[in-house]
Amino acid sequence: MNRTEIDTLGEFGLIDRITKGFEHRQPSTVLGIGDDAAVIDGAGKHAVWSSDMLCEGVHFDLAYVPLKHLGYKAVVVNLSDICAMNVLPTHVTVSVALSNRFSVEAVEELYEGIRLACGVYGVDLVGGDTTSSRSGLVLSLGVMGWAEPGSTVTRAGAQVGDLLVVSGDLGAAYMGLQILEREKHVLRAAPGAQPELAEHASLIGRQLKPEARTDVVKELAQLRVRPTAMIDVSDGLASEIRHLCQRSGRGIRLYEDKIPIHPETYAAARAFDLDPTLCALSGGEDYELLFAVTPSDINQFLNHPLFSVIGHFTEAEKGHVLVTKQGLEVPLQAQGWDGFTAAG
Amino acid sequence: MNRTEIDTLGEFGLIDRITKGFEHRQPSTVLGIGDDAAVIDGAGKHAVWSSDMLCEGVHFDLAYVPLKHLGYKAVVVNLSDICAMNVLPTHVTVSVALSNRFSVEAVEELYEGIRLACGVYGVDLVGGDTTSSRSGLVLSLGVMGWAEPGSTVTRAGAQVGDLLVVSGDLGAAYMGLQILEREKHVLRAAPGAQPELAEHASLIGRQLKPEARTDVVKELAQLRVRPTAMIDVSDGLASEIRHLCQRSGRGIRLYEDKIPIHPETYAAARAFDLDPTLCALSGGEDYELLFAVTPSDINQFLNHPLFSVIGHFTEAEKGHVLVTKQGLEVPLQAQGWDGFTAAG
Repeated sequence: MNRTEIDTLGEFGLIDRITKGFEHRQPSTVLGIGDDAAVIDGAGKHAVWSSDMLCEGVHFDLAYVPLKHLGYKAVVVNLSDICAMNVLPTHVTVSVALSNRFSVEAVEELYEGIRLACGVYGVDLVGGDTTSSRSGLVLSLGVMGWAEPGSTVTRAGAQVGDLLVVSGDLGAAYMGLQILEREKHVLRAAPGAQPELAEHASLIGRQLKPEARTDVVKELAQLRVRPTAMIDVSDGLASEIRHLCQRSGRGIRLYEDKIPIHPETYAAARAFDLDPTLCALSGGEDYELLFAVTPSDINQFLNHPLFSVIGHFTEAEKGHVLVTKQGLEVPLQAQGWDGFTAAG
Repeated sequence: MNRTEIDTLGEFGLIDRITKGFEHRQPSTVLGIGDDAAVIDGAGKHAVWSSDMLCEGVHFDLAYVPLKHLGYKAVVVNLSDICAMNVLPTHVTVSVALSNRFSVEAVEELYEGIRLACGVYGVDLVGGDTTSSRSGLVLSLGVMGWAEPGSTVTRAGAQVGDLLVVSGDLGAAYMGLQILEREKHVLRAAPGAQPELAEHASLIGRQLKPEARTDVVKELAQLRVRPTAMIDVSDGLASEIRHLCQRSGRGIRLYEDKIPIHPETYAAARAFDLDPTLCALSGGEDYELLFAVTPSDINQFLNHPLFSVIGHFTEAEKGHVLVTKQGLEVPLQAQGWDGFTAAG
């Protein structure tokens, strides 16, 4: 592969090169990249706006994350925040700080992933910043969506008796990471070794190429259900439940046997000598949507292929209770990624 | 001063601590910090949105920039981008990546500057991200304003014969930086030395605590003038003129004797053996507004204390011409910061 130094293009040449081929799909995009700011028509709606930062060595390790996947994932995790407000994302900005370790081709690969995600989700890239960094790669994204006033869902609002529902399944992204880390160590020990990734392709895919649940936001609109509280699962189920409880002023009863874990996740966890439930509770990076609904909506969710009803909200004084498969009631530990790593 | 390690608070504790005391002043702020996204009421207006990234060792040097000033400046340079669209900024998000070199008190100092800027400009901090970094400090800001459809001004739109106008004066921030760098070297050579900064307080202030020209945006509205093209002076006058010409498809005639340079800037440049005009053309970080207006608006600007008419737009083929004080016509060099540093 050619290696073109970024210096040879300069900042503006680089921006021209990487933003080529980003189409505008949103009719609300009045002005995109290339001026001091983007202009977006809201037509009387509320702007829903989030931002997020990803740092090399903290949020990703380029030893096993291809740049294209990194670009894709960076967009997706930001879109997920807007979905968690019950809103469909429409616009993103991407700022990148790069050291001279990166060639133009490497940056193009990163933007190829960003472009792919923009295409898949129909969002427009409308701005950002490109700068040099003294050290690693830093990505900072902004994302926006538009909502009818009153239709957004915050973390605060779950009532006593509300059901706790989660989309998809949990723990797969964490197991994908375990597999990638194992392969990294194998490759370090024996550089010529052929990684055994094929058999775990779907778990690795959940880690490297997660998806934002825009389909869930659309389905909720279809079902005419407005959750009372919602969050996305980025740090792990237990941590997100804690956020919902804290902001809503509620307690929770979570049923272990209801937590959706894919058979492949389950098998991989067992092979790694890990508790599959713990992977779901503390693994994180699933980007599923976790929300509260009023009990009268239960029939919409009980046999719905997208959703699992996994618990219900209680008075705050009753605390956070995990009902195990054996019927024991144990305190739900809210361990985020760090806590889990330390414990594991 | 106490030193509290960030670890002792954790991410959420840190966020609670640093976002305390940020008031909401904008009636359009529906939901601010603490959820998955912010919600802002646009009431039929266009959202004008920009983002920017600042990296330690590239955009700032903590050896002579106090953290409070850094926070203030980071907000201001972003607000300036929205002003450059002829729009008043209303909302910001701030994301920060920190290494463990920084204590909680240091982060509080940074946010003290951010809070100060939010207060001065009446903008609401509504989101952001706080994360750890493996190396230096990285700041990433998003900023938003709201415009009546059709009122925004881009870089493209200057017509042949339009006047080129700039607010305030130029080159002061660059001279402030020269003074700070000299003092840094003096202090390195003789750690006990007393820096001679007092006599240059206003130039240093222009570097450390620049201001966004929201007053200019308001004055333009007052004068009922809508510029045909506009940009803010972040990289230096010559570079910004080049952007306006390129995007508008025009040439320029710039008159050296019209370029506004404060007497103090002039004297300092001479003392440093620098050409004052070159400081204005290539210094940058002035955050003045540079814009084109139709010739019929000339009387509004000729004797206005905020503005200087410094040139006019020509056909693109006539190129970029600087008419020197001696009446010579020379090509206008578009040197940004880097070019200047290399040449200096």
